Amino acid sequence: MAAQRYEVRFSGTGGQGVVLAGMILAEAAGLFGGRHVVQTVSYGPQVRGGNSNAEVVISEEEIDHPKPIALDLLVPFTQQGCDEGAKLLKPKGIVLLDPEMVTQMPEGWIAPLPLKRIALEATGKGQMANIVSLGAIAVLCPHVTIEAMRMAVRERAPRGLEEIFLKALDAGYSVADSMREKITFREAPSPED
Amino acid sequence: MAAQRYEVRFSGTGGQGVVLAGMILAEAAGLFGGRHVVQTVSYGPQVRGGNSNAEVVISEEEIDHPKPIALDLLVPFTQQGCDEGAKLLKPKGIVLLDPEMVTQMPEGWIAPLPLKRIALEATGKGQMANIVSLGAIAVLCPHVTIEAMRMAVRERAPRGLEEIFLKALDAGYSVADSMREKITFREAPSPED
Repeated sequence: MAAQRYEVRFSGTGGQGVVLAGMILAEAAGLFGGRHVVQTVSYGPQVRGGNSNAEVVISEEEIDHPKPIALDLLVPFTQQGCDEGAKLLKPKGIVLLDPEMVTQMPEGWIAPLPLKRIALEATGKGQMANIVSLGAIAVLCPHVTIEAMRMAVRERAPRGLEEIFLKALDAGYSVADSMREKITFREAPSPED
Repeated sequence: MAAQRYEVRFSGTGGQGVVLAGMILAEAAGLFGGRHVVQTVSYGPQVRGGNSNAEVVISEEEIDHPKPIALDLLVPFTQQGCDEGAKLLKPKGIVLLDPEMVTQMPEGWIAPLPLKRIALEATGKGQMANIVSLGAIAVLCPHVTIEAMRMAVRERAPRGLEEIFLKALDAGYSVADSMREKITFREAPSPED
């Protein structure tokens, strides 16, 4: 039963679209996927260095504990977000990251994806890395289909920008199959490194 | 210490802007007010009749329990949202409602405000009742100033609509002083009613 619970954290600073990404994932899985979903965003003095987290817990059953216990998927848009989130990963949890945005990778399963570059190529806007990541999540997360994600993106994109948001989403999704093979376990660096 | 914890629930159906209202309140209190804030949105099969809740817990201290325990403020945009939320109110909790949107009022402290009509008069758009409610909350909630709320609204309004969002916010705020006196305790209706 526990395997049905799936926990995601997006982590980044203001303007990177962390909250929007969490909301779209939550609506894709909840409103359009029929799953139980709780989305949580924390703000305040505890958010050091302007880093903020949007967390989404998805389950086929009712969710009694709304906050993540151990992450299945971490999507950091900053080094700090990666360092902090890595401590909460499940043993087989995956870190979906852009090696240009997060240069020091943690130990564990890493899915490296040039989110920013994909966003730039697909839409001309590098800041749509958050939406690109949602396309990749549609491959990685068993609770969300790309169809549900598209519905949620269409719903939440600012009016007039629906098509460009969908382009970013689809670009992330289309590279995700090749990405599957790129998910590799990274050992802790040896002290000499 | 417990008095410092302040719990708000927005409740409504799709398109009423429940999630956006929760997000703006959370950012006003957290990003711009320096409080600890956790915002939670739940989706899924448990959301009966398409009603969804956005909940915001605000505190001067770290928040250990992210979900509301007893509401200080309920803001329902539907009858169902009012009926369900009223069960979770604190003894002195307040229900901020539009008597045209919620016709059967619960027992307790009621702040009646024609949110839709105020929105329509201020902006020409009745669906901005959610933003009007935020102006009133700046009066009701001790953790949020109107200045912080304005900053959060400006941040989250769709591009090009910032000024109209601020108009709705300010309209809600400006009627809120007179509203203070309108907050009245409503007894449970007698069985003959």
